Amino acid sequence: MDRVTLLKKKAFEEKGFDGFLVANDANMLYFTGFPGAACLLFPRDGENTLYVYGVNYEQAKAEGRGFRVELVKRDENLMAKVATHVKDYGIRKLAFDALNIESYRSLAKGLRGKTRLKPLGKLVWELRKVKDANEIELMRRAGELTCEGMKAAQEVLRTGMREYEVAAEIEYAMRRKGSWGTAFDTIVASGTRSAFPHGGCTDREIRQGDLVVVDIGASYRFYRSDMTRTFVAGKPSEKQVRLYEIVKTAQQRAIQAVKAKAKARDIDAVARKIIEEAGYGENFVHSLGHGIGLEVHEPPTLSPQSKDRLAAGNVVTVEPGIYIVGFGGIRIEDTVLVGEKDVEKVTCGFYTLEVCQ
Amino acid sequence: MDRVTLLKKKAFEEKGFDGFLVANDANMLYFTGFPGAACLLFPRDGENTLYVYGVNYEQAKAEGRGFRVELVKRDENLMAKVATHVKDYGIRKLAFDALNIESYRSLAKGLRGKTRLKPLGKLVWELRKVKDANEIELMRRAGELTCEGMKAAQEVLRTGMREYEVAAEIEYAMRRKGSWGTAFDTIVASGTRSAFPHGGCTDREIRQGDLVVVDIGASYRFYRSDMTRTFVAGKPSEKQVRLYEIVKTAQQRAIQAVKAKAKARDIDAVARKIIEEAGYGENFVHSLGHGIGLEVHEPPTLSPQSKDRLAAGNVVTVEPGIYIVGFGGIRIEDTVLVGEKDVEKVTCGFYTLEVCQ
Repeated sequence: MDRVTLLKKKAFEEKGFDGFLVANDANMLYFTGFPGAACLLFPRDGENTLYVYGVNYEQAKAEGRGFRVELVKRDENLMAKVATHVKDYGIRKLAFDALNIESYRSLAKGLRGKTRLKPLGKLVWELRKVKDANEIELMRRAGELTCEGMKAAQEVLRTGMREYEVAAEIEYAMRRKGSWGTAFDTIVASGTRSAFPHGGCTDREIRQGDLVVVDIGASYRFYRSDMTRTFVAGKPSEKQVRLYEIVKTAQQRAIQAVKAKAKARDIDAVARKIIEEAGYGENFVHSLGHGIGLEVHEPPTLSPQSKDRLAAGNVVTVEPGIYIVGFGGIRIEDTVLVGEKDVEKVTCGFYTLEVCQ
Repeated sequence: MDRVTLLKKKAFEEKGFDGFLVANDANMLYFTGFPGAACLLFPRDGENTLYVYGVNYEQAKAEGRGFRVELVKRDENLMAKVATHVKDYGIRKLAFDALNIESYRSLAKGLRGKTRLKPLGKLVWELRKVKDANEIELMRRAGELTCEGMKAAQEVLRTGMREYEVAAEIEYAMRRKGSWGTAFDTIVASGTRSAFPHGGCTDREIRQGDLVVVDIGASYRFYRSDMTRTFVAGKPSEKQVRLYEIVKTAQQRAIQAVKAKAKARDIDAVARKIIEEAGYGENFVHSLGHGIGLEVHEPPTLSPQSKDRLAAGNVVTVEPGIYIVGFGGIRIEDTVLVGEKDVEKVTCGFYTLEVCQ
């Protein structure tokens, strides 16, 4: 069953709605394969309609197959227009994925209380979090491209380079092999900045003895990958090696625990317990991982509070870390595909600590 | 007056609110200089408070100067926590910049009808659209870096290359010179794909006679730039040259018309009239330009419907285009700074049509 049919089955047959409005960019891309829609209306009784502004109209007609393409003119209010069609299609109970407060009000105003409106983004997430065969191929490709970037980091990283120069080589390697872009802003966080999990990438010069957290992702045909390795500039200290081994063990054990039907919070617990027992529980300041696909952060979430249960076809990151302010941080991350009985690493296998001179 | 003081003056003294909640990422970055906050509360009577999750807590304390940093724990609901503080501070009329419907409901629930809630994102835009001296320096730097990318495109572009390979060279050049990343997904749209203004960048091979629209931007310390040039692979046809000259004239005349106090729609009209009179009005399928800064699309908007009036310190793009399905597209774009009596191009001056072999 295709994605649109599946959504309609869930929303209309199982939940009793007679219309579904999609307004989140990634959700629209998921259903249409086209990245430039303004919103998307699925009526129970009527044609699936893609709303686009003039700038993307011709591209939508060429690429948005299977949809009626409705041009939104410059002087039209998008939600007022959608409201008109909702009434034309006789929709009484309209679910939607995500709207900001202004769009919601503008839609509600247009509907004049005659249609019930309910946020139901969860329904789309139920579909998106289980990747189909085509998506899995694209994510494997994104994973391969990410590895090319990490290998480039390993080859070029050395003291005296600036963080952004390392990022340049990584992104260039990924692009040349066919990446469509970065999955998120590349992180090359060195020295004490590596203690900040989202340290970004600045013009700081890498110095002898620095920890360097490299967190990168390629994208391929809109699908994203995510991978982190931690390097040391020069010979690692005893403490660096000790912390690295803790994180590495936590990551490997957690990956081994990933399988269909496992509770996401149990996977988090595997890694967290190892880090806690080593005395660094307070320094593992984030969740173990997150789903990934068209967006870099998606359900399911691997965290102590997660209520998710893994299923075959989920693609998640596994990324424990230890962060010590004033000292530095270590994180190791792979993107993995959940199988029925096993797990497949989508990003590549090499581990590294000491690489640069 | 600093940004926070200015916002408070506008929201509290002029509009009568006694609290302002900031939840949009770029707005938070604007007020704090820190990119990882969950939200930001300005009470009229009380401390400015930055809410952050554990993953960014230490970085917020190091970089979010002038704010009380409040840790949001894993098991806490962010908006419920904010609501508690809103009550503690005695806030009765709370403005906010942007919330999705779930966050809005969760906040409203926590406030139990005791505080009025009103969307007022416009107030922050009034500040953000006038860049200060520091922001202008960063945007000039982002513009210079973007030019480095365009020069690289000019040097390497030739038939037989794939679109993503051209993107690789552009992004590498920008990064090596110090770019912090791309301002948006690089567009290298060739052949008939160039007729799609948001054509992206694929593995299509560039062929002799192709129009190639290259739309790129570097970013520097979170500030973005935007620039487009159109190339031809090989010797341009008469029609390509004719269309190119129309777009070039439209772009140059429109830039000359940019100045403080001008109506944004009048600038759009300058370019649109030239294209219309040449017989291609229907093929200029988008607005003339948009503001740019921390985000790639900001107010003011240069379009026929715009109600904006330009002011010194605005930074906008000027980017007319002609798009013909089945033939290709031409767009020329620069980022420009509005002065009191003149205009400064932030991206560089070279124009080009024929470059590749």
